[in-house]
Amino acid sequence: MGLPAEKIAGVVEELKALLGDRVSTAAAVREHHGHDESYHHAALPDAVCFAHATEEVAEIVKICARHGAPIIPYGVGTSLEGHVIPADGGVTIDMSQMNEVLEVNAEDLDCTVQAGVTRKALNEYLRDTGLFFPIDPGADASIGGMTATRASGTNAVRYGTMRENVLALTVVMADGRIIKTNRRARKSAAGYDLTRLMVGSEGTLGIITEITLRLFGIPEAMSSAVVSFPDLEAAVNTVITTIQAGVPIARIELLDEVQMDAVNRYSGYDYPVQPTLFLEFHGSETGVKEQAETVGAICEDFGGADFQWTTRPEDRNRLWQARHDAAYAAKSLKKNASIWATDVCVPISRLAECILETKKDIVENELTAPIVGHVGDGNFHLAFVFEEGDEEGFRRAEQVNDRMVMRALAMGGTCTGEHGVGTGKMKFLVAEHGDAVAVMREIKKALDPQNIMNPGKIF
Amino acid sequence: MGLPAEKIAGVVEELKALLGDRVSTAAAVREHHGHDESYHHAALPDAVCFAHATEEVAEIVKICARHGAPIIPYGVGTSLEGHVIPADGGVTIDMSQMNEVLEVNAEDLDCTVQAGVTRKALNEYLRDTGLFFPIDPGADASIGGMTATRASGTNAVRYGTMRENVLALTVVMADGRIIKTNRRARKSAAGYDLTRLMVGSEGTLGIITEITLRLFGIPEAMSSAVVSFPDLEAAVNTVITTIQAGVPIARIELLDEVQMDAVNRYSGYDYPVQPTLFLEFHGSETGVKEQAETVGAICEDFGGADFQWTTRPEDRNRLWQARHDAAYAAKSLKKNASIWATDVCVPISRLAECILETKKDIVENELTAPIVGHVGDGNFHLAFVFEEGDEEGFRRAEQVNDRMVMRALAMGGTCTGEHGVGTGKMKFLVAEHGDAVAVMREIKKALDPQNIMNPGKIF
Repeated sequence: MGLPAEKIAGVVEELKALLGDRVSTAAAVREHHGHDESYHHAALPDAVCFAHATEEVAEIVKICARHGAPIIPYGVGTSLEGHVIPADGGVTIDMSQMNEVLEVNAEDLDCTVQAGVTRKALNEYLRDTGLFFPIDPGADASIGGMTATRASGTNAVRYGTMRENVLALTVVMADGRIIKTNRRARKSAAGYDLTRLMVGSEGTLGIITEITLRLFGIPEAMSSAVVSFPDLEAAVNTVITTIQAGVPIARIELLDEVQMDAVNRYSGYDYPVQPTLFLEFHGSETGVKEQAETVGAICEDFGGADFQWTTRPEDRNRLWQARHDAAYAAKSLKKNASIWATDVCVPISRLAECILETKKDIVENELTAPIVGHVGDGNFHLAFVFEEGDEEGFRRAEQVNDRMVMRALAMGGTCTGEHGVGTGKMKFLVAEHGDAVAVMREIKKALDPQNIMNPGKIF
Repeated sequence: MGLPAEKIAGVVEELKALLGDRVSTAAAVREHHGHDESYHHAALPDAVCFAHATEEVAEIVKICARHGAPIIPYGVGTSLEGHVIPADGGVTIDMSQMNEVLEVNAEDLDCTVQAGVTRKALNEYLRDTGLFFPIDPGADASIGGMTATRASGTNAVRYGTMRENVLALTVVMADGRIIKTNRRARKSAAGYDLTRLMVGSEGTLGIITEITLRLFGIPEAMSSAVVSFPDLEAAVNTVITTIQAGVPIARIELLDEVQMDAVNRYSGYDYPVQPTLFLEFHGSETGVKEQAETVGAICEDFGGADFQWTTRPEDRNRLWQARHDAAYAAKSLKKNASIWATDVCVPISRLAECILETKKDIVENELTAPIVGHVGDGNFHLAFVFEEGDEEGFRRAEQVNDRMVMRALAMGGTCTGEHGVGTGKMKFLVAEHGDAVAVMREIKKALDPQNIMNPGKIF
């Protein structure tokens, strides 16, 4: 596996001539780039480059292409399916120093950023413009990584995913060519949609170096609410009814009673230990009020307790911090624990059924796995919690996950709503897409005939 | 050009064995399938097949592939850039008899239709469900054709284009393989976005046979308004301000004074002969009222006359019929006239500049070319009107169009907002996309190595 040492030495020498001390083969640097935030086994790159410009990425790619060295793009390492792990070694291109916001066109509600800009840094930059970038996967991921994995998160039910919010990309192809996939126009019918082909391609077709994004005006009014329900079904049915009623809700997040217990312990809250929805409404003052009233009535119909909404920013922030800390809270349920976050998405009419059957399977297998979900999209995650060294529990969890994925597929769903394939979901791809996977492979082969672009991911 | 007669005879014989009298080589049938609604020169297919099922399309494609015969998918012939014209002859597959709505999942706000279902037929079918499919390109196009050309139209500013509203496709590839590009889940991060690759591929990568679409609840309230402005700039600035204010307007259409004059004559109205906006608001009762008030105030700021809104369905229908008849109205400006509809789209901040410079060019070249635009997206059309045989005028119009496209590209725009490339926009593709066109060609070559899928389109 991987390139022989003398080949690597040749690649590194050429990279050093190009980048000087922005190439590293130091053990600590390689180790840092050998894993993501998931349970997947680490593997080391042979070298790490810190790129500063698209043209530099193109030169790095050309060097690697000449030597047949694998190229792994790396943002800030928050991926969850092993996307950045160099399974066969090779050269990791760390994009985090390409962190400039290149332009903001406030009048057109768009901006262009380098791939290493994180979503929080972008929103910080935008603060005085009255605009914001809504996609929020929880982690402070890089925009490049979010694009490459087709990320979404809590706001997607209203604002869409990266698929809908990327207008154009600059991409370095496998032979070092630099292409721009689109211009800034809001829509275009001019040729194949290379933008969408690259969004979610996980570094296997090219390296995304610049991204033009849609922006949104910060809503005039925002309000949030937390509502607990007698059971999961009632909570999920509230979600389904809300979506079907066409309420333009900005966030509608489910946390089951196990997760709520973890949140209370971790963050010092005293929420009822029951299935709970976290809600957020964006719009005009009257629009938000109207939405909250509509959803409040739906909650009541399904036995939701004590629907109260707040517009105070500090309350809203506190609430969403608790939601974003869900993974840490889950982790704290056991000592020295590790967690594994799963990720299926189903048509919303099947959501209650999918969650309830899965929950039963978790209980029957005596696993700890709080459930959180971006349920407005039909997307939910289990966070399996393992004590250190619990190999047997991990194997049971794998079986529960396999069954959950097959259940989701049978319901017209997908093996991954937002985390991506990486190495973790490869085994489900044919079950989900059938012969379409062969078409994906043909595209991969046409655009990366040497298979040097993040090899071993997706396929 | 095209296949030799004895080859064609062999293809037709095999097709007849498969389809019986649903294959035609009759002159009238071939003629009907030899043109679209545009100014592009007609060309005849060698044979026309009327398909009834995906599997049948796959068999037709296999026969054509064995013989190297070009395959041209045909919906209802409303395309505007020559997409369905068999430039090299070959076999046209008429999809119009694949016109079944296969399923409606009202709870999930989606449906699956065969490619030949038209948008009006779909909305007729949906009438009792409380749902509708919003994309409205004007013509009663087939959903397959709308998907293949990435169509949009008057509602796109709120509901998006076909890009955003197709969830999944069944596609017959160039070798007769049948693939499904996705499932019904609202979002997925599972592999390459083949759905979006096929949307807008104009029959050059495969034949779209079934489409799963997003649906929307019919809004609780709808209101419309017509407002005239002292000049074009004021009208466009009203649009820009409305979009920037984040008003979720459903339609915001511009008609210049030349178009309004045509509309008055054609439809018997007495609207002021001035640049005019046609507006529509969708939402709750209070939401629609609020939107109309906000936009009414913006109109007033820019000197808009007499902003009046109506919620009566008959008034709204009458108003939008006038808008939809704009092309016919333009055509009636001259005797025995033909029209040529252009289609650029720019970032909205550049819209006034782009329209005004173009208008000046039209006037200086003494051409008749009313302007209509889906201006909320930055998209507008000229309808050049020619008297029969006015070759010289057509040449001047070509120059005006060339300059307009290059102007739009220089402003970060596109040569086609919604009509597609076909043969009409091929010459602008490299100017717009540069090296990305080579990547498109590589994908085309990988998926259609014989170049039999609608050859001569896009590239």
